[in-house]
Amino acid sequence: MLPSHLNGHSALGRRRPRLSAAAGESPAAAGVEAAAPLEEHDRIYFQAYSHLGIHETMIKDRVRTDAYHAAIMRHQKFIEGKVVLDVGCGTGILSVFCARAGAKRVYAVEACEIVVQAREIVKANNLTDQIVVIHGRVEDVDLEEKVDVIISEWMGYMLLYESMLPSVLFARDKWLKPGGLILPSHATLFMAPVTNRERYEDSVDFWRDVYGINMSALVPLAKKFTSEEPSIETIGGENVISWPSVCARYSSSASIAIILQLRNSNLSLQNTKFHQ
Amino acid sequence: MLPSHLNGHSALGRRRPRLSAAAGESPAAAGVEAAAPLEEHDRIYFQAYSHLGIHETMIKDRVRTDAYHAAIMRHQKFIEGKVVLDVGCGTGILSVFCARAGAKRVYAVEACEIVVQAREIVKANNLTDQIVVIHGRVEDVDLEEKVDVIISEWMGYMLLYESMLPSVLFARDKWLKPGGLILPSHATLFMAPVTNRERYEDSVDFWRDVYGINMSALVPLAKKFTSEEPSIETIGGENVISWPSVCARYSSSASIAIILQLRNSNLSLQNTKFHQ
Repeated sequence: MLPSHLNGHSALGRRRPRLSAAAGESPAAAGVEAAAPLEEHDRIYFQAYSHLGIHETMIKDRVRTDAYHAAIMRHQKFIEGKVVLDVGCGTGILSVFCARAGAKRVYAVEACEIVVQAREIVKANNLTDQIVVIHGRVEDVDLEEKVDVIISEWMGYMLLYESMLPSVLFARDKWLKPGGLILPSHATLFMAPVTNRERYEDSVDFWRDVYGINMSALVPLAKKFTSEEPSIETIGGENVISWPSVCARYSSSASIAIILQLRNSNLSLQNTKFHQ
Repeated sequence: MLPSHLNGHSALGRRRPRLSAAAGESPAAAGVEAAAPLEEHDRIYFQAYSHLGIHETMIKDRVRTDAYHAAIMRHQKFIEGKVVLDVGCGTGILSVFCARAGAKRVYAVEACEIVVQAREIVKANNLTDQIVVIHGRVEDVDLEEKVDVIISEWMGYMLLYESMLPSVLFARDKWLKPGGLILPSHATLFMAPVTNRERYEDSVDFWRDVYGINMSALVPLAKKFTSEEPSIETIGGENVISWPSVCARYSSSASIAIILQLRNSNLSLQNTKFHQ
């Protein structure tokens, strides 16, 4: 019922939050694979409740989940018999993929309360010999060994929105063996000017005649709203009005992890320029 | 892209807020139809920005807006030549409807910043002789006369969610002439148990097999989420599994405005009872 740009906007804020309540907890107290005391278990079992929809949304994003699954299977020879670290494992789905690909051991590290369910999922799938679920921040946990592979789904909107990449880089520097594998190892952020006549007509021109009333006084507000609010949605290629331009690259091996190549000439394009 | 229950949930929180920044402003300072000083005008012109989508959503709700338009035209003989008070006029659309129905004068009262645009809309439609836009809370404004008609769109989700009805009743007691008209004058809230097998399968059963992984550990969370979170959506009649029951009535003439008739036998029905 809501205009799509409102949905998109709210989605931006609904992406999984980082750490929150779990941040203050001592990872030493949580322990490696230690079952939480019963009362603790009861307390936190339903705390993941409010974020469940986020995990559902992420896993149901087939492009995302299928890409991880394909990447793991493509690197199966490198994963088989090796040690993997899953940074921010969430429900543990990527850890299970790695275990199925033959990993000797997977350290599944998660700071949020969903870790309780991740541990149960590991048990239910008879993978406790392979997967070690750890409740804590990757910056704080203490592994028993260095790892051959780091896997993580750290990407947010606009690639970097979640601010989770620094944790992955920290884990790389502290726990990855020389020559180890990071999945994903590269990322490129493209930017392109787009138009959306339908949206514009529906949200801006709409106000020019509402039930026969001239409501054009709202047009400046609507333009501001349409052009300045972030909007997460899928659009057709016909709405992209120039070649995409690379504005950020990430390489896991680069000493400077993120190279921003902002091209001002492209970024100064204003949505409104194509409509006025 | 988001599950519909997430959209619905967020919609609940996105409904227009009441008062906020404008609440502290003296209505006397805003004055009746007085143009705001220029710097004040500049300051507040774009403050309505963040709420524009809410007005768009409300006006585009054709069932809602058409019902108000039809009610005003049906009562045209009572409105023609009379004085109307629009409580919480927003963009002023209902005030314009009343002016077009022949009202001698419409007091359009709005506490939020959108009042700046409402005033411009009145001017653009050459209705300044009929419509007096007033920036302030209806509890604080001082009208020059008693009114024959009060109109207001005070209904929120679950009828009462916005908590705006008390303002309408206050206006009735203070400003409505004896025998005056209130639109709407009656409201009835129905409640009925519903089922939604598709939603249930998509959000709860989904976890039983995710990419071949048993994620049933998430089923209790998913059930809790599905049955306890409010969800605003349109469903088909085939999902309503019992006769609706009246659980609240509002009558503008009743000395006790709201008569809650909670029927425990109906309300104790749990969504999950139909699925387990």
